[in-house]
Amino acid sequence: MDRKRYRAIVEYEGTDFLGYQIQAKGRTVQGELEKALGKVTQSDIRIDSAGRTDAGVHATGQVIAFNALWRHSLEELHRALNATLSWDVVISDLTISDRSFHPRFDALSRTYRYTILNQLWPSPLQQRYAYHIRNPLDVAAMRQAGRLFTGTHDFASFGKPPQGKNTVREVKQVEWIVDGTRLVFEITANAFLYRMVRTIVGTLVQVGLGQLVPKDVKDIIAAQDLTQSAPPAPARGLCLIKVTYPQGSL
Amino acid sequence: MDRKRYRAIVEYEGTDFLGYQIQAKGRTVQGELEKALGKVTQSDIRIDSAGRTDAGVHATGQVIAFNALWRHSLEELHRALNATLSWDVVISDLTISDRSFHPRFDALSRTYRYTILNQLWPSPLQQRYAYHIRNPLDVAAMRQAGRLFTGTHDFASFGKPPQGKNTVREVKQVEWIVDGTRLVFEITANAFLYRMVRTIVGTLVQVGLGQLVPKDVKDIIAAQDLTQSAPPAPARGLCLIKVTYPQGSL
Repeated sequence: MDRKRYRAIVEYEGTDFLGYQIQAKGRTVQGELEKALGKVTQSDIRIDSAGRTDAGVHATGQVIAFNALWRHSLEELHRALNATLSWDVVISDLTISDRSFHPRFDALSRTYRYTILNQLWPSPLQQRYAYHIRNPLDVAAMRQAGRLFTGTHDFASFGKPPQGKNTVREVKQVEWIVDGTRLVFEITANAFLYRMVRTIVGTLVQVGLGQLVPKDVKDIIAAQDLTQSAPPAPARGLCLIKVTYPQGSL
Repeated sequence: MDRKRYRAIVEYEGTDFLGYQIQAKGRTVQGELEKALGKVTQSDIRIDSAGRTDAGVHATGQVIAFNALWRHSLEELHRALNATLSWDVVISDLTISDRSFHPRFDALSRTYRYTILNQLWPSPLQQRYAYHIRNPLDVAAMRQAGRLFTGTHDFASFGKPPQGKNTVREVKQVEWIVDGTRLVFEITANAFLYRMVRTIVGTLVQVGLGQLVPKDVKDIIAAQDLTQSAPPAPARGLCLIKVTYPQGSL
């Protein structure tokens, strides 16, 4: 019987996690997944992932992969894992993948969604999933400034690389969607720097509040200096929604 | 200086409450609101409400009223109350009302929304706000059975009266809205019995699963016997969204 490689799409509610990546102390998504895999397969399993989301950040489309020896059906593994995981982590899709598949190195792009609630008072029902801003935001200006991020740029002003020194990334698409008092920012890039989406959103919020004009954002990008951008927007508004691969979108 | 009567619309996230109505022990929405009013106005204030939602039930449109002596502006009272309340209760609207206004006795109708998530696996991001059902539901049958509730009926099979013995209610509108894998049930009535919406939804889910046919629902209504209906659907899917009054919708 062979060890197989598995690929999974994972959804999680980030509020009660210290982040995705396993740490010496504290509850992490990776830790919970590896613990569940250990229980179900009775062996130590390390998982790889498409991206390491920060404490409090959510995901509906995180992609992971792992090798496992499993005697029963794929459906039984899927069911056993979800039965073992707590309510805030769910494997929404599980398939057998190529032996060589790596969720991070093979990924072509990642898409994040950031939700702002722009109304007078916060909404308890959206508290965990949106950043409440009381003052009216100028969406037209935020759209104009948002477009400046598309293309290949050195994003050193907007985050640190998770490893190495390369801060050049390609932003493929940027969009602000208005849904009543909700402003939803969607951004797709080949990859992101640490806290890049939240720092971009924090900076665009300053544009929306009239504290910066779109031209300032152009200068901040050009500065390649992290101290020039705004503080990152809060983690709770952020969600990793999609990762794409050469064989298609997951 | 006069005592004035105030009317407020309240939104709350019901997960961490033992319900709306104040109790000897435990955290309630009414208790939190009265505590905040006491702190802000430095006096004991009792509030009236349009309806007493159960433990775990949410609201975006609960209506309350209270009398208070307040020296400053309405805006300052509103701000002070929201600053005092915790994240899971927010007053979204505050106005001065007629002295005689009573949120329960003056209400013409209440509208509740119940959200079902009908997909293979639960969604962590919707866990607090939707009832997950794994098996596919027959929405056409649920729509057909749902229409049987409209009109004036004795709803003794679907709940107990909060007081007195009258179990006759007028259901003004019933609708199932399909939004991807979300099935949203909206129901408007002059008033509801205790657990009536959840018991109707629980019964309609049995129709959706093929355990009952629409004709059975007709018989259950006619039986006027609470033991004939299905168990109530879980509280977390339910939300009080609107209460209407002669002077208009709030």
